[in-house]
Amino acid sequence: MNDFIYENSTKIYFGKDQLRKLSVELCKHGKRVLLTYGGGSVKTSGLYDKVVEEIKKSGLQLFELPGIEPNPRIESVRKGAEICKREKIDVLLAVGGGSTIDATKYIAAAACVDFDPWDFFSKFSPLKEALPVVIILTHSATGSEMNTGGVISNLETKEKIGRLARPLLPKASFLDPTNTYTVGPYQTACGSADIMSHIIEVYFNMNKGLYMVDCFMEGMMKTVIKYAPIAMKEPDNYEARSNLMWASSWGINGFISSGKRQAWSCHSMEHELSAFYDITHGLGLAILTPRWMEYCLDETKVSKYYQFGTNVFGIDPTLEPMTVAKKSIEMLSDFLFNTLGLQSTLTEIGIGKENFPIMAKKACEGEVIAGFKPLAQKDIEKIFEMCL
Amino acid sequence: MNDFIYENSTKIYFGKDQLRKLSVELCKHGKRVLLTYGGGSVKTSGLYDKVVEEIKKSGLQLFELPGIEPNPRIESVRKGAEICKREKIDVLLAVGGGSTIDATKYIAAAACVDFDPWDFFSKFSPLKEALPVVIILTHSATGSEMNTGGVISNLETKEKIGRLARPLLPKASFLDPTNTYTVGPYQTACGSADIMSHIIEVYFNMNKGLYMVDCFMEGMMKTVIKYAPIAMKEPDNYEARSNLMWASSWGINGFISSGKRQAWSCHSMEHELSAFYDITHGLGLAILTPRWMEYCLDETKVSKYYQFGTNVFGIDPTLEPMTVAKKSIEMLSDFLFNTLGLQSTLTEIGIGKENFPIMAKKACEGEVIAGFKPLAQKDIEKIFEMCL
Repeated sequence: MNDFIYENSTKIYFGKDQLRKLSVELCKHGKRVLLTYGGGSVKTSGLYDKVVEEIKKSGLQLFELPGIEPNPRIESVRKGAEICKREKIDVLLAVGGGSTIDATKYIAAAACVDFDPWDFFSKFSPLKEALPVVIILTHSATGSEMNTGGVISNLETKEKIGRLARPLLPKASFLDPTNTYTVGPYQTACGSADIMSHIIEVYFNMNKGLYMVDCFMEGMMKTVIKYAPIAMKEPDNYEARSNLMWASSWGINGFISSGKRQAWSCHSMEHELSAFYDITHGLGLAILTPRWMEYCLDETKVSKYYQFGTNVFGIDPTLEPMTVAKKSIEMLSDFLFNTLGLQSTLTEIGIGKENFPIMAKKACEGEVIAGFKPLAQKDIEKIFEMCL
Repeated sequence: MNDFIYENSTKIYFGKDQLRKLSVELCKHGKRVLLTYGGGSVKTSGLYDKVVEEIKKSGLQLFELPGIEPNPRIESVRKGAEICKREKIDVLLAVGGGSTIDATKYIAAAACVDFDPWDFFSKFSPLKEALPVVIILTHSATGSEMNTGGVISNLETKEKIGRLARPLLPKASFLDPTNTYTVGPYQTACGSADIMSHIIEVYFNMNKGLYMVDCFMEGMMKTVIKYAPIAMKEPDNYEARSNLMWASSWGINGFISSGKRQAWSCHSMEHELSAFYDITHGLGLAILTPRWMEYCLDETKVSKYYQFGTNVFGIDPTLEPMTVAKKSIEMLSDFLFNTLGLQSTLTEIGIGKENFPIMAKKACEGEVIAGFKPLAQKDIEKIFEMCL
């Protein structure tokens, strides 16, 4: 078990009736607020009006950056950073899902430097400060609402990069499950696959960690398996939406990786898929994860699959470990592709093998993904091929 | 499910090799450090020397308050607050278990007011500020290392009071499992019973909460059941000590109560036991908890016991719910009194029924404990009697 530091100071306002505390949170940081959001859904849902009303009645000054795209792009960050500098913004308020939140975090950091944002982020210059960010979450998926990370894409260079830095941690996040009632079944499925993947990337690890945290991860995975299908069928089921929302945050806020060397493999591969083809992140992860699990399975790792199969899917523990392991992959696939109804192959979403070599090379940065099983370019190509 | 706010900014340094970061943490708050500790065990273990060395080599100025007693008393708080005022202390460093930590939190708050500490705390005056507190934990039990609470006793008035206030949250806690290697089997058992009780007090609740968090609580209880006996037999088993330590913090840091109206019953009753008889808190809880569970069990609540019995103790889920419920109480008792070897009755520890009426009256503050099952004075007396 490795030593670790755990620190997460994001203040969470969870529930139906918390928005009236928004202005108090914003006022802690100043008077000039940049509101960021994506497409029109926050307007059609009525959330935009409620938020603007809260902001205005407390005398804060409002600026806006709408139109942040899915797989958010560096152009939005450039635009946002310019507004922050020009208007002397004190605090950013992101209303949306992972894309809007990630872009807003990058804007908050880009506003504090004089470089071009892409140069700054892609050269991995030290990220020492950022404007404060407050979140109103509308989609349970990335966990960006309670962590120090974010990703940003550059479609010109076909690159998607991620940064982790403490100044990117949101000061406060408003998690109102009713704000996810308008998320359709397909996006609910993609978001749930994303949450599931965050847990799997940490759980599948032979590095000895904390049993207690493994139990927690198993509980989170059971939560997603139990509630994602309910939320898809009954979009306004509060119990389902609230469990998915809280799982989204805890799936990737630093807690579950306590004591483990982390081993993220599917995310590195998926970032190439969405950088090249602009697909939904959660969908890419869903297609990759069972194939990656199949590729990594061998006698040295079977015990982890056995633990997963018996504790998460309730597979009969008296079966042979290898049988349980294979069955666990089948059951995960069944959950992702039948229960959630996600497309199960890259072929189905129009992706062929032409870019596999370059994508694989980029995924391992020309070397190796030092994950659950070390993956070199050839391994990654094979996993991509298994997804066809 | 209730709305809730979750916020916990304590920075945790977990593991064997973190103490070298102590001075950086202390220096954030100033130069003048009050080191608090209990009996001589921190000296015999060698921890005291290591801590003093760290403090001195970074040029901090050290003051000391030794001798903080188990079930810490208001006299220690008075002494500590005087030192803080006289020496213009900037930051407090508690090295110890729950008693030392609780007393130190109260000192940190008492140092900021002009009242007598007991007057101030017992009148529930608003606790608006406190000096910063940093912790080095040496016993896994109360969870005080990562929360806003603490208890203090006044043996003169036979009162034990608890306060919860954000300024009491430690700024940082150093959780090194090896610092608990010297905790003997009996104290390890008492600490484990305390952790278990913190979870049970929240878990047994018919208020609909978050399934995900229930899963986590079940994982924590399984963790205590698995590792407490190991830590008792093999005091230097790092895996056991680290799991118990992390469970101690998460058992009562605000997370598991997400979305639930809390319903603490055994703690209110136990505080009277230790206020009157100065017994070890975890032992009092161990004796009370199974009797309280037995007293509360009826058809309206059996589903929660069923969930507990099947998910925590692995009782056959095809049995009748009431059978599972009764068996779960038996298995918990077996764990506490046979596996952990704790005394199972008040009689065994020399407590008779003479003070039951007054203790019961105080426990419910003359009204009712509005817990899992509302308990009036008569109910509490009966539960005490069941413990004889």
